[in-house]
Amino acid sequence: MGFDVNEAIGFGAAVLTTIAFLPQVYKTWKTKDVSSLSLPMLILFFIGIILWLIYGVLLHSPSMIFANAITVISTILLLYYKLKYGKQ
Amino acid sequence: MGFDVNEAIGFGAAVLTTIAFLPQVYKTWKTKDVSSLSLPMLILFFIGIILWLIYGVLLHSPSMIFANAITVISTILLLYYKLKYGKQ
Repeated sequence: MGFDVNEAIGFGAAVLTTIAFLPQVYKTWKTKDVSSLSLPMLILFFIGIILWLIYGVLLHSPSMIFANAITVISTILLLYYKLKYGKQ
Repeated sequence: MGFDVNEAIGFGAAVLTTIAFLPQVYKTWKTKDVSSLSLPMLILFFIGIILWLIYGVLLHSPSMIFANAITVISTILLLYYKLKYGKQ
Protein backbone atom coordinates (compact mmCIF):
# COMPACT_ATOMS: atom_id res chain seq x y z
CA MET A 1 0.00 0.00 0.00
CA GLY A 2 1.25 3.48 -0.90
CA PHE A 3 1.23 6.51 1.36
CA ASP A 4 -2.30 7.80 1.75
CA VAL A 5 -2.48 11.52 2.51
CA ASN A 6 -6.12 11.29 3.60
CA GLU A 7 -5.36 8.59 6.13
CA ALA A 8 -2.26 10.47 7.34
CA ILE A 9 -4.40 13.51 8.18
CA GLY A 10 -7.14 11.32 9.62
CA PHE A 11 -4.58 9.50 11.73
CA GLY A 12 -3.15 12.81 13.00
CA ALA A 13 -6.67 13.92 13.92
CA ALA A 14 -7.33 10.57 15.58
CA VAL A 15 -4.15 10.69 17.67
CA LEU A 16 -4.75 14.29 18.81
CA THR A 17 -8.40 13.97 19.82
CA THR A 18 -7.66 10.62 21.46
CA ILE A 19 -4.68 11.78 23.55
CA ALA A 20 -6.56 15.02 24.33
CA PHE A 21 -8.68 13.10 26.81
CA LEU A 22 -5.71 11.65 28.67
CA PRO A 23 -4.76 14.87 30.55
CA GLN A 24 -8.46 15.34 31.34
CA VAL A 25 -8.83 11.79 32.67
CA TYR A 26 -5.55 12.16 34.64
CA LYS A 27 -6.57 15.54 36.09
CA THR A 28 -10.01 14.25 37.08
CA TRP A 29 -8.57 11.06 38.59
CA LYS A 30 -5.92 13.05 40.52
CA THR A 31 -8.08 15.91 41.82
CA LYS A 32 -11.47 14.12 42.02
CA ASP A 33 -12.80 17.56 41.00
CA VAL A 34 -15.67 17.16 38.54
CA SER A 35 -17.49 20.38 39.41
CA SER A 36 -17.02 22.06 36.04
CA LEU A 37 -17.65 18.95 33.92
CA SER A 38 -21.17 18.86 32.47
CA LEU A 39 -22.99 15.52 32.94
CA PRO A 40 -25.31 16.01 29.91
CA MET A 41 -22.16 16.71 27.85
CA LEU A 42 -20.59 13.42 28.94
CA ILE A 43 -23.75 11.39 28.24
CA LEU A 44 -24.41 12.91 24.79
CA PHE A 45 -20.73 12.65 23.90
CA PHE A 46 -20.60 8.99 24.94
CA ILE A 47 -23.57 8.01 22.73
CA GLY A 48 -22.19 10.12 19.88
CA ILE A 49 -18.76 8.46 20.03
CA ILE A 50 -20.41 5.03 19.83
CA LEU A 51 -22.13 6.18 16.61
CA TRP A 52 -18.86 7.64 15.23
CA LEU A 53 -17.26 4.26 15.87
CA ILE A 54 -19.99 2.49 13.88
CA TYR A 55 -19.69 5.14 11.12
CA GLY A 56 -15.92 4.58 11.02
CA VAL A 57 -16.49 0.84 10.57
CA LEU A 58 -19.02 1.50 7.77
CA LEU A 59 -16.61 3.91 6.01
CA HIS A 60 -13.69 1.49 6.53
CA SER A 61 -11.74 4.32 8.13
CA PRO A 62 -8.90 2.95 10.30
CA SER A 63 -8.37 6.41 11.87
CA MET A 64 -11.98 6.75 12.96
CA ILE A 65 -12.14 3.21 14.33
CA PHE A 66 -8.88 3.62 16.28
CA ALA A 67 -9.72 7.06 17.69
CA ASN A 68 -13.30 6.37 18.68
CA ALA A 69 -12.57 2.98 20.23
CA ILE A 70 -10.11 4.59 22.64
CA THR A 71 -12.23 7.70 23.21
CA VAL A 72 -15.16 5.49 24.24
CA ILE A 73 -12.99 4.20 27.10
CA SER A 74 -11.87 7.71 28.16
CA THR A 75 -15.48 8.90 28.12
CA ILE A 76 -16.64 5.95 30.23
CA LEU A 77 -13.93 6.82 32.79
CA LEU A 78 -14.98 10.49 32.90
CA LEU A 79 -18.65 9.51 33.23
CA TYR A 80 -17.72 7.16 36.08
CA TYR A 81 -15.75 9.88 37.89
CA LYS A 82 -18.54 12.43 37.36
CA LEU A 83 -21.18 10.08 38.79
CA LYS A 84 -18.91 8.97 41.65
CA TYR A 85 -17.39 12.28 42.75
CA GLY A 86 -20.24 14.54 41.64
CA LYS A 87 -22.39 13.30 44.50
CA GLN A 88 -20.17 14.80 47.17
CA MET B 1 -30.39 10.72 -3.92
CA GLY B 2 -31.64 7.67 -2.00
CA PHE B 3 -31.48 7.15 1.73
CA ASP B 4 -27.90 6.50 2.80
CA VAL B 5 -27.63 4.42 5.99
CA ASN B 6 -23.96 5.31 6.46
CA GLU B 7 -24.68 9.03 6.32
CA ALA B 8 -27.70 8.61 8.61
CA ILE B 9 -25.49 7.05 11.30
CA GLY B 10 -22.74 9.59 10.65
CA PHE B 11 -25.26 12.39 10.90
CA GLY B 12 -26.59 11.00 14.21
CA ALA B 13 -23.03 10.83 15.52
CA ALA B 14 -22.36 14.36 14.29
CA VAL B 15 -25.48 15.80 15.93
CA LEU B 16 -24.79 14.10 19.28
CA THR B 17 -21.11 14.99 19.64
CA THR B 18 -21.85 18.52 18.42
CA ILE B 19 -24.73 19.25 20.79
CA ALA B 20 -22.80 17.50 23.59
CA PHE B 21 -20.62 20.60 23.87
CA LEU B 22 -23.54 22.99 24.22
CA PRO B 23 -24.40 22.09 27.88
CA GLN B 24 -20.65 22.27 28.64
CA VAL B 25 -20.29 25.71 27.03
CA TYR B 26 -23.48 26.90 28.77
CA LYS B 27 -22.38 25.56 32.17
CA THR B 28 -18.93 27.12 31.84
CA TRP B 29 -20.36 30.45 30.66
CA LYS B 30 -22.91 30.46 33.52
CA THR B 31 -20.67 29.39 36.41
CA LYS B 32 -17.31 30.72 35.15
CA ASP B 33 -15.96 27.56 36.84
CA VAL B 34 -13.17 26.06 34.76
CA SER B 35 -11.26 24.42 37.62
CA SER B 36 -11.81 20.83 36.48
CA LEU B 37 -11.32 21.46 32.76
CA SER B 38 -7.86 20.46 31.54
CA LEU B 39 -6.05 23.11 29.43
CA PRO B 40 -3.84 20.55 27.59
CA MET B 41 -7.06 18.64 26.76
CA LEU B 42 -8.63 21.73 25.21
CA ILE B 43 -5.52 22.61 23.17
CA LEU B 44 -4.96 19.07 21.83
CA PHE B 45 -8.67 18.68 21.14
CA PHE B 46 -8.82 21.98 19.26
CA ILE B 47 -5.94 21.03 16.92
CA GLY B 48 -7.39 17.54 16.49
CA ILE B 49 -10.82 18.86 15.53
CA ILE B 50 -9.23 21.09 12.87
CA LEU B 51 -7.60 17.97 11.39
CA TRP B 52 -10.89 16.00 11.57
CA LEU B 53 -12.52 18.86 9.67
CA ILE B 54 -9.87 18.62 6.91
CA TYR B 55 -10.24 14.82 6.89
CA GLY B 56 -14.01 15.18 6.54
CA VAL B 57 -13.51 17.47 3.53
CA LEU B 58 -11.08 14.97 1.97
CA LEU B 59 -13.51 12.06 2.51
CA HIS B 60 -16.44 14.17 1.26
CA SER B 61 -18.30 13.35 4.47
CA PRO B 62 -21.09 15.89 5.10
CA SER B 63 -21.52 14.61 8.68
CA MET B 64 -17.86 15.11 9.58
CA ILE B 65 -17.70 18.55 8.00
CA PHE B 66 -20.88 19.70 9.75
CA ALA B 67 -19.96 18.29 13.16
CA ASN B 68 -16.36 19.43 13.25
CA ALA B 69 -17.07 22.93 11.93
CA ILE B 70 -19.44 23.55 14.85
CA THR B 71 -17.27 21.76 17.40
CA VAL B 72 -14.33 24.00 16.44
CA ILE B 73 -16.42 26.97 17.59
CA SER B 74 -17.46 25.30 20.88
CA THR B 75 -13.83 24.38 21.58
CA ILE B 76 -12.65 27.94 20.90
CA LEU B 77 -15.25 29.20 23.41
CA LEU B 78 -14.14 26.70 26.08
CA LEU B 79 -10.47 27.57 25.48
CA TYR B 80 -11.32 31.26 25.81
CA TYR B 81 -13.21 30.67 29.11
CA LYS B 82 -10.39 28.49 30.46
CA LEU B 83 -7.75 31.13 29.68
CA LYS B 84 -9.93 33.98 30.98
CA TYR B 85 -11.36 32.46 34.17
CA GLY B 86 -8.49 30.06 34.89
CA LYS B 87 -6.29 32.95 35.99
CA GLN B 88 -8.43 33.83 38.97
